[in-house]
Amino acid sequence: MNKLVIVGTVAFDAIETPFGKTDKILGGAATYIGLSASNFNIDAAAISVVGGDFPKKYLDLLEDRGIDISGIEIVKEGKTFFWSGKYHNDMNSRDTLATELNVLEHFKPIVPENYKDSEIVMLGNLHPLVQQGVLNQMETKPKLTILDTMNFWMDIALSDLLNVIKNVDVITINDEEARQLTNEYSLVVAAKKIQEMGPQYVVIKKGEHGALLFHDENVFYAPALPLKEVFDPTGAGDTFAGGFAGYLAKTGDISFENMKNAVIYGSTLASFCVEKFGTERMVNLKSNEIHKRLQQFKDLTQFEIELT
Amino acid sequence: MNKLVIVGTVAFDAIETPFGKTDKILGGAATYIGLSASNFNIDAAAISVVGGDFPKKYLDLLEDRGIDISGIEIVKEGKTFFWSGKYHNDMNSRDTLATELNVLEHFKPIVPENYKDSEIVMLGNLHPLVQQGVLNQMETKPKLTILDTMNFWMDIALSDLLNVIKNVDVITINDEEARQLTNEYSLVVAAKKIQEMGPQYVVIKKGEHGALLFHDENVFYAPALPLKEVFDPTGAGDTFAGGFAGYLAKTGDISFENMKNAVIYGSTLASFCVEKFGTERMVNLKSNEIHKRLQQFKDLTQFEIELT
Repeated sequence: MNKLVIVGTVAFDAIETPFGKTDKILGGAATYIGLSASNFNIDAAAISVVGGDFPKKYLDLLEDRGIDISGIEIVKEGKTFFWSGKYHNDMNSRDTLATELNVLEHFKPIVPENYKDSEIVMLGNLHPLVQQGVLNQMETKPKLTILDTMNFWMDIALSDLLNVIKNVDVITINDEEARQLTNEYSLVVAAKKIQEMGPQYVVIKKGEHGALLFHDENVFYAPALPLKEVFDPTGAGDTFAGGFAGYLAKTGDISFENMKNAVIYGSTLASFCVEKFGTERMVNLKSNEIHKRLQQFKDLTQFEIELT
Repeated sequence: MNKLVIVGTVAFDAIETPFGKTDKILGGAATYIGLSASNFNIDAAAISVVGGDFPKKYLDLLEDRGIDISGIEIVKEGKTFFWSGKYHNDMNSRDTLATELNVLEHFKPIVPENYKDSEIVMLGNLHPLVQQGVLNQMETKPKLTILDTMNFWMDIALSDLLNVIKNVDVITINDEEARQLTNEYSLVVAAKKIQEMGPQYVVIKKGEHGALLFHDENVFYAPALPLKEVFDPTGAGDTFAGGFAGYLAKTGDISFENMKNAVIYGSTLASFCVEKFGTERMVNLKSNEIHKRLQQFKDLTQFEIELT
């Protein structure tokens, strides 16, 4: 088993979908990644920052799932990062209604001493300089570094982003972001270009259309489980990344073949995330539920054509 | 091996894509379905109508691929059906520039005597009354009837369409059409509603995002092969249907498990179709090329997670 270190936001979200709306609830990339990775019973730590307004019960919740929270700084006099968004009817696009950086504005991540030798590093969506700051603190070269990002950083901090992209092994990104980053419509061509920027492995997340993993000339395509309804897509991408990183940390095997399995685990966990608002479905997820859904994924995708 | 009878248009197409444009070239649903199904070396017949302006070389081309063309009527004094369309930059949407029905307007399909006992019937995109007319001529109950259609018929002949849908086993339809037919956004819910309309099996084609097969509570999802570029999507859906029907005719096995394989064959053949304009890639397709691409599909989708 490998150690996993995660950096990302821990936040308040307020979400509106065609199915309803929430007040401020638990959110943030590190929250979703951590909850998802916690299903592998690995040694994982979350690095983030919250304000004095952040309820202890939310931190307890992460700790109860086995996440080391010593790297989550509490700025007593500060306010927690807040994001609010409204999804359109197709659930594939959304408007950001509010973004209050608050304590995130001056966040300097600190990797706990006993996680500076983590084999797997998961850089959740955050300013690329913060992501690089975590990499810089690692005392042994990680076996695998994974970066998630979003179009926002391409718009306002592209050169910082390109610098950190250069230094990671895997990038997870959605289809529109891959297109924006490369100015290429074809995802195959976009993935190729991103590989030339640094990461040997490119994961392109296509929401309800699944996820693609590219490495050299190899491609793997994991469909998303077709769902009766997507209740709230918030956190699905982070949950995917957490499942991906968590599975790799658990198995310690970073071969392409095993990364396929990591993509399947990521997709499986993301399929739960969207079933309820926010983290609701993830905080109570049971291993037998995951097991059952993995079987559904096999039934969904595996076929028997003999080629000689 | 089972016999396959196909009904659909045999036509002239003029196509414009971001990569270029064509004059009148060979097109039509029955053409693409027939070319695709011909890869299985089965006993297949195409039923259609063309005008006196239709080049003999096009008919020869179908015959050379082993398709029985005795059911393709030639109306000497008439003109062949003509369709012209222009694809947008994303290749997922298109504008129809011209539709000249010509000989199609009074088309009465005639099933050749020796195909009235075909086990597999593939009703390609055409007026639903013409599709029903073919079903009515079958002298033995087919083992499997498959219907393809499009939004056009939902707009102008919905009740005729619903009548023929009632009488078929499988429907192949694209995602937008499934939504239009059921007024449901979720494809899972849409597929359920379509099953209640008659067909036990529902195939939803999602273009570059692959295809879904629904039956009772079972779902199978075949991704599309990620391509560097899609040159011309015309005929991809028909090529999919032809591969699907052709494989089922060849194997004679209409179980859900084997239908998964049929979906994979359909997707594989469609992945060739879009590589060149019109039928260009399909008329010269070799079995070793198909074999190689099937292997790519396995590499693309198959994974090894042991569940106990």
